[in-house]
Amino acid sequence: MSGLIALDWGTSSLRAFRFDGMGQLDETRMRPWGIRHLPEGGYDTALADITAGWPVLPRLACGMVGSRNGWREMPYLDLPASASQLAKAIGAVRAADGMDVHLIPGLRDPHGPDVMRGEETQLIGALELHPELAATSTVILPGTHSKWAAVRDGVVTGFRTQMTGELFAMLRQHSILGATGAEAANDAEAFERGVGMARDSGAAGALSRLFSARALMLDGALAPASVPDYLSGLLIGEEFRAALADGLACRDTPLQLIGEAALCERYRRAAAQFDITLPPPIADAAARGLWQLAMQAGLVPVHHEESRAC
Amino acid sequence: MSGLIALDWGTSSLRAFRFDGMGQLDETRMRPWGIRHLPEGGYDTALADITAGWPVLPRLACGMVGSRNGWREMPYLDLPASASQLAKAIGAVRAADGMDVHLIPGLRDPHGPDVMRGEETQLIGALELHPELAATSTVILPGTHSKWAAVRDGVVTGFRTQMTGELFAMLRQHSILGATGAEAANDAEAFERGVGMARDSGAAGALSRLFSARALMLDGALAPASVPDYLSGLLIGEEFRAALADGLACRDTPLQLIGEAALCERYRRAAAQFDITLPPPIADAAARGLWQLAMQAGLVPVHHEESRAC
Repeated sequence: MSGLIALDWGTSSLRAFRFDGMGQLDETRMRPWGIRHLPEGGYDTALADITAGWPVLPRLACGMVGSRNGWREMPYLDLPASASQLAKAIGAVRAADGMDVHLIPGLRDPHGPDVMRGEETQLIGALELHPELAATSTVILPGTHSKWAAVRDGVVTGFRTQMTGELFAMLRQHSILGATGAEAANDAEAFERGVGMARDSGAAGALSRLFSARALMLDGALAPASVPDYLSGLLIGEEFRAALADGLACRDTPLQLIGEAALCERYRRAAAQFDITLPPPIADAAARGLWQLAMQAGLVPVHHEESRAC
Repeated sequence: MSGLIALDWGTSSLRAFRFDGMGQLDETRMRPWGIRHLPEGGYDTALADITAGWPVLPRLACGMVGSRNGWREMPYLDLPASASQLAKAIGAVRAADGMDVHLIPGLRDPHGPDVMRGEETQLIGALELHPELAATSTVILPGTHSKWAAVRDGVVTGFRTQMTGELFAMLRQHSILGATGAEAANDAEAFERGVGMARDSGAAGALSRLFSARALMLDGALAPASVPDYLSGLLIGEEFRAALADGLACRDTPLQLIGEAALCERYRRAAAQFDITLPPPIADAAARGLWQLAMQAGLVPVHHEESRAC
């Protein structure tokens, strides 16, 4: 029996995908066992549980499981990096069941410096799902730590992390801007206003406009319940402003979002205020990337379109 | 008997200054009774205690005591604003002892929008102490919410709040960047490196470089104990970068710091990396500003240099 058990093992959750030998996804499982929230028994117990009842198959994992605080540290691979270079750099950790779990390394951009772990696999998946992105594109992966990655000729040539999600949560929970005493409303106009404030901040940037959230509220020009959406717009807008200033995004380079629908919709709305039209997001590219890298690493037989069609 | 009781009444502390009729500062008292930490009995008890044994004199206060959450809300005065306009906008609250406490309004920059409360009085004090700043200068008041204020012909024409102090504390206590597990070292080189990272971020700005603190640490290129100084440099450097980009600071406009010595020294070191030489800071300008505004409001007789010399 051939096939693959693919693991997307991050900080806060673990997902397992079972592929058949033709790359068909047969089953997906999810557990809240990120590397900071492992069950008793640690990695081995988590692995045994999430793959219970599945056949013995090669196992390949991406994400924080390969970090310094993970199961085994996989050194970052320096840019520029292609799928085949990533596949060649795959290492392994021996599990308690006597078999290996292969680990995909993260990527390091020496020019930041900057690092990613897990997103590289989503990028490879996105390039398989949308081959037209390979020539020239910038891929945006919104999240706690948003990544903006530049792709040229199928190779990841640069990327930048924006701590948008973490900053947003911190500002709401721990700053004077979050101390409004109001339940957050869903205010699309406040979001747009925040994006506009970031866009119009020019070279000074939105960090210098953060306090406007408070000044507008004191003015009565922004409802306390709308401050969160304003801040969300300001921080997401700042991602676009900075990426355009940095050359990580250009108006004539295709941009592609990967991520959860509601969050990606915010990015699409922000992009529109920069006169950028974003195509529908790719919902989940990790599974496709794991399969692709498993093939390139020889963990599963390579199948061409012809054989798949059999 | 003439003279003035001047109060600098902020969020976290209360200071009282007793002036004689000639503007000579006779006594200073301090209590931890900011408007969020009032003693039982509130404002009246705090006032009675801190002025105990002092003669009955006109009382003038600046700071958050005049805010929405203060003793009585004083509407912000819109820019451009001079000392005489501020003096004319002074209001009052009647204390339980039957006498008024006069309150200085804060300033509002409609172009931010942005607001300050308390710093306007320090600005007026600085202009009295250093009349050469009145023609053209930018005054920097570092702190939890740093203010950069532009002065032209003795008038405050614009200002910008940077949430540097609050962001720094939040990033250290609540973000992944602060989760280093190390005691903070005093690392001047890491500070300079952070300033350099902000300066060299160009139009993209330092918010897009925040994650470098983590990437450098993972690289082994920044000691965990040095991350706080690196972040301090990055955020203070970003103040200079943004102010230069915004035109709030120009290399040919005199810049003046007002504030606590150790913090101001960080700003001087950061400025040097932008080829800006800052003069020694003004340690405390609030008392001088309160006296000056009391004179302009007619709360104390106006004395000229001749009479002072008597």
